Amino acid sequence: MDTSQVGEPAIGDAFGLGLLDYLEHGSDGWDHFVERDDGLLELIDPGVYFGSESDWSVTEAVVLERAGHRVLDIGAGAGRHALPLQQAGHDVVALDISPGAIEVCTRRDVKRTFTGTVFDLADTGGGPFDTFLLCGNNLGLLGSPAHAGRFLGALDQLAAPGAEIIGTCVDPLATTNPLHLEYHQLNRGRGRLPGQLRLRTRWTNLASPWFDYLFLPVPELEALAKESGWRLVEQQQGPRPYLAVLQRK
Amino acid sequence: MDTSQVGEPAIGDAFGLGLLDYLEHGSDGWDHFVERDDGLLELIDPGVYFGSESDWSVTEAVVLERAGHRVLDIGAGAGRHALPLQQAGHDVVALDISPGAIEVCTRRDVKRTFTGTVFDLADTGGGPFDTFLLCGNNLGLLGSPAHAGRFLGALDQLAAPGAEIIGTCVDPLATTNPLHLEYHQLNRGRGRLPGQLRLRTRWTNLASPWFDYLFLPVPELEALAKESGWRLVEQQQGPRPYLAVLQRK
Repeated sequence: MDTSQVGEPAIGDAFGLGLLDYLEHGSDGWDHFVERDDGLLELIDPGVYFGSESDWSVTEAVVLERAGHRVLDIGAGAGRHALPLQQAGHDVVALDISPGAIEVCTRRDVKRTFTGTVFDLADTGGGPFDTFLLCGNNLGLLGSPAHAGRFLGALDQLAAPGAEIIGTCVDPLATTNPLHLEYHQLNRGRGRLPGQLRLRTRWTNLASPWFDYLFLPVPELEALAKESGWRLVEQQQGPRPYLAVLQRK
Repeated sequence: MDTSQVGEPAIGDAFGLGLLDYLEHGSDGWDHFVERDDGLLELIDPGVYFGSESDWSVTEAVVLERAGHRVLDIGAGAGRHALPLQQAGHDVVALDISPGAIEVCTRRDVKRTFTGTVFDLADTGGGPFDTFLLCGNNLGLLGSPAHAGRFLGALDQLAAPGAEIIGTCVDPLATTNPLHLEYHQLNRGRGRLPGQLRLRTRWTNLASPWFDYLFLPVPELEALAKESGWRLVEQQQGPRPYLAVLQRK
């Protein structure tokens, strides 16, 4: 046999196909997992992606009040943020790189969707948007210091004057869990930020490609955004994720 | 960074340390997973390993009636079969290659344990035993046709006259699940039996080494055992696992 493949899952849309499975079969479907590149494996409750507005974290409640009319929901998942905003009359585009996730959004009646990255959307001349949503810890999509610059640059292209980013994230250093502390050390040793997670989704025998997901303390987020011309104008500390609002300078 | 390590868990006693975690923290501990070498990932309920006699499958109930005095419980896990047999007055040795599992057995008052394989125990001149237990699907430890011969040979060395193997296993072909049917095809294509699973346990950021676990239909088990001088003297079809009793010719 080809031992190079031993133990390696097939690469595919594990995230989106998993969401579709949950949409169709609920908790009778296959389990969802997230894997970190130190081998840490955790079970995920896909129901979280289907939560209604009342399930949003306290910090995210501000979104409904603060969001402008034209909203880009980045990493929209199953549409749990896009749907209530749409119902409240906002013009929302749900963006996700996962075709399965976008299929789920559509089946759940999200009217406008985009399958791809913010770079893809900027290339098509999409926008302008008043608000970029990076909820559900999706400020992590900044990925790395280098990627954050390019990512925020793409949002510049898509932004209306005065546009804001509303997002949530986790301070990676606010933990005493030895597995996470060891991972921070591993990351420092290989020249990465401690909270620069390399993750993939797993579902059945599929895995998503590995991707970087960046957890930052608020001051470091503020400094990183500033380099790209975005300033922190509000923050709320939640019990675990924090909410941050960034505005173009 | 060293990309060769991306995504690879550390190799260690994932099974045993997971059992210890469950013993100490119950469902507040870390989740347990089993991974198949096509990438299929499944959540395991570690509580199963701690089930009392009343939780045994119907087919396993025969064990308490049929077992001889001197019992070797092979792949004893947390001792769920060893403990009730010991309480019923049998002289039981709980054998497991996992030091963590043996630690759990000891803490749960299994009196006699052995950390290692049946080959290790045979090398030490252990036995003789009247009954070899391979419950909890542990007939799968036959591993492969080639390994089965060596494994049954080791039991020969450890056997008292008239010794029996009492074990349970699953007929791998009794499924319509496409993921399993695809896996059977993958196995056939690489010269393995369809039910010759390659598995590992995962817990936190640890994985056990990969091991082969052989699921066989009853007639194939019978034929394989016969080659090594063991004959099938009883079988019981359960809803999913079957129970088989093998005797030395």
